[in-house]
Amino acid sequence: MATKVTTPKGFRDFLPQESSLRAFVLEKLRKSFEKFGFEPLETSAIEFAETLKGKYGEEEKLIYEFTDRGGRQIALRYDQTVPLARVVSQYPTLPSPFKRYQVQPVWRAENPQKGRFREFIQVDFDTVGTENCLADAEIVTTAVFSMKALGFKDFTVRVNDRSVFDGLSPETIRALDKLQKIGETGVIEQIKREGYDTAQAKALFKRVKNSSPTKRVGELFDLLENFKVEKDKYAFDPTLARGLDYYTGLIFELEIEGYSGGSVGGGGRYDDLTGIFGLPNVSGVGISFGIDRIFDVMNELNLFDSIGLTTSTTKVMLAHFGEDERNYCIGIASQLRYAGINTEIYPDVTKKIAKQFDYANKKQIPFVIVIGGDEMKSGDLALKNMSNGEQEKLKIDVIISKLK
Amino acid sequence: MATKVTTPKGFRDFLPQESSLRAFVLEKLRKSFEKFGFEPLETSAIEFAETLKGKYGEEEKLIYEFTDRGGRQIALRYDQTVPLARVVSQYPTLPSPFKRYQVQPVWRAENPQKGRFREFIQVDFDTVGTENCLADAEIVTTAVFSMKALGFKDFTVRVNDRSVFDGLSPETIRALDKLQKIGETGVIEQIKREGYDTAQAKALFKRVKNSSPTKRVGELFDLLENFKVEKDKYAFDPTLARGLDYYTGLIFELEIEGYSGGSVGGGGRYDDLTGIFGLPNVSGVGISFGIDRIFDVMNELNLFDSIGLTTSTTKVMLAHFGEDERNYCIGIASQLRYAGINTEIYPDVTKKIAKQFDYANKKQIPFVIVIGGDEMKSGDLALKNMSNGEQEKLKIDVIISKLK
Repeated sequence: MATKVTTPKGFRDFLPQESSLRAFVLEKLRKSFEKFGFEPLETSAIEFAETLKGKYGEEEKLIYEFTDRGGRQIALRYDQTVPLARVVSQYPTLPSPFKRYQVQPVWRAENPQKGRFREFIQVDFDTVGTENCLADAEIVTTAVFSMKALGFKDFTVRVNDRSVFDGLSPETIRALDKLQKIGETGVIEQIKREGYDTAQAKALFKRVKNSSPTKRVGELFDLLENFKVEKDKYAFDPTLARGLDYYTGLIFELEIEGYSGGSVGGGGRYDDLTGIFGLPNVSGVGISFGIDRIFDVMNELNLFDSIGLTTSTTKVMLAHFGEDERNYCIGIASQLRYAGINTEIYPDVTKKIAKQFDYANKKQIPFVIVIGGDEMKSGDLALKNMSNGEQEKLKIDVIISKLK
Repeated sequence: MATKVTTPKGFRDFLPQESSLRAFVLEKLRKSFEKFGFEPLETSAIEFAETLKGKYGEEEKLIYEFTDRGGRQIALRYDQTVPLARVVSQYPTLPSPFKRYQVQPVWRAENPQKGRFREFIQVDFDTVGTENCLADAEIVTTAVFSMKALGFKDFTVRVNDRSVFDGLSPETIRALDKLQKIGETGVIEQIKREGYDTAQAKALFKRVKNSSPTKRVGELFDLLENFKVEKDKYAFDPTLARGLDYYTGLIFELEIEGYSGGSVGGGGRYDDLTGIFGLPNVSGVGISFGIDRIFDVMNELNLFDSIGLTTSTTKVMLAHFGEDERNYCIGIASQLRYAGINTEIYPDVTKKIAKQFDYANKKQIPFVIVIGGDEMKSGDLALKNMSNGEQEKLKIDVIISKLK
């Protein structure tokens, strides 16, 4: 029987070049979150189905749910907010406020299409257990700090307050959320569907569009100024809506200038996150980054190049003319590795030098040292820069300080 | 309806203190693997069920398998070796040899018990596509280097060659694998069950036990000497068996002195890994670390303490006597954070100082700075060491250089 040699649709493998760039991005984000006192949390990939059900509205049908061998209904993690609510409810000894970040895959039975996958990493950071606006301001400051850490320059955190929508139906709020897609006419059409005539609907939309910043938005902006966040990095936008029903206060969306793929992150303040788990009156605020989109834009804007990231984690490869030379490489490799330089030895002793160079090129290893009999005698090693072809004869200690 | 506030049996959450120690261990391992030219690979958590079936022998019943909404039989990742084989077969443009490491969760419907979970992280590193013994030697050297990077001192890589068992049945090999559990008598009983009398069984066991190192073992040991791996870090053990059927050459097991929980890693050389995916004659060698056990031993041996790892990622918290002081903290926090120091501001302005200190203690934050009116006027900040209670009045730039 032939076995399928592919993943199901909507699922991906990340080969080394992509995987190491992604790891770099995630590590930068982790370090940024930790700078602001957020600590890592990991939750189980599998939850009881009932833990997830009744939490996601009509999206619930996208949960991966199944029966295990013991007859239990279980489900794969769908987001990181419901597991966070479970954790805060389950472990009463956690510090409060609880500041955590979480970087784990989630699974959704979506229709796979460009940029939409059935498995993807979510990156969330939240402060749960305080209503103080400092928490909101720190969430926004952390988001701005993180984006700068990744090399982004032109981006904005759009801010709104859900109270701007008081009296509007969830359907209208969802229509507003699609403003950039359906335009003003589309939003007004939706408002009319709720029993207003054209003039009323237009007036209602205009009222929303011309709303002034609320007191809470003012408080946030004062704190952001105190945090020294540059003024061009945030802006009040009364038409910002966010799709999810559970936001109750400030809401945020992160936009990168010149990127048409939509917002790369968003979030807001939610009340009563843990009520359904028996712990009432816990308010939280957080932002979630869309890592696939961030990765997309970084590629588009050549940010990986500009921060000097080669696409191989290996810095230098040792090539050789035969077994004695290969074994001589082992000593050289040890010196390089103990000096902290990622080093590879081409293992086979039967392959021509050209073949070994092909391998280094394929892996995009930036430097190759070629070891022949002369090099073994003199200790003068030929270091070849693979991007410009230049070659220098150098002693190993010079090579080490050069590559470090 | 009350919602269950727990994970299913055999599944775990990792709260911040444990999660950050685990992240530290995994990061050390990644960096070690990269030093030797291994690059990261990530595969899809969900595979077609047929990709996994027929690969794990009787363990197959432990695969988490289910039908998705489209009627496809899909399954959760069970190990990282079969996905590696799929990837090597699926992407013909990958460099060969392919040196990858992989750090992802796997799921097994095991009977949960002490130290055995239904979801756990596997840490694998393999070189696929060369039979050269240098690859085997580098795998062992990388394992030794990684263990030392984690602070381990007394450990051994036990080495054997599967050819020592030529002529023995898989059942006898599996009995040998349990030697430490069932003793010599247990192994001999098993051999007898295959039609030998007591004398024959004893002789057979003795023959295995007194086997000399094979030529390949000798070649490995020469290379390890060349790699300058200390001689007490590896040893030939003709009774080492390894449970899995697919090993065909050298096999390895990693043992830590004084730890009774079993080996913390193991692996070996396997031929024809990818044959079942239509790509014949691909030989590989690798080791897999058991991260839960490694984490256990590190706790047991206090290695986290000895490498100076505090259990909070946050270095300092700013406490305050009210809103003005809290807002003054924001500027101090920004200076600390931009200097690279993980800093937290206690957000609420209504909580007493004692309550703020409780919070810092709970999070095991090592330093607290208390801001009152005097501090705001003089800029002399009170830095309190939370482990010994000592307090010093210092300017912010002195604090920064102290905490860095």
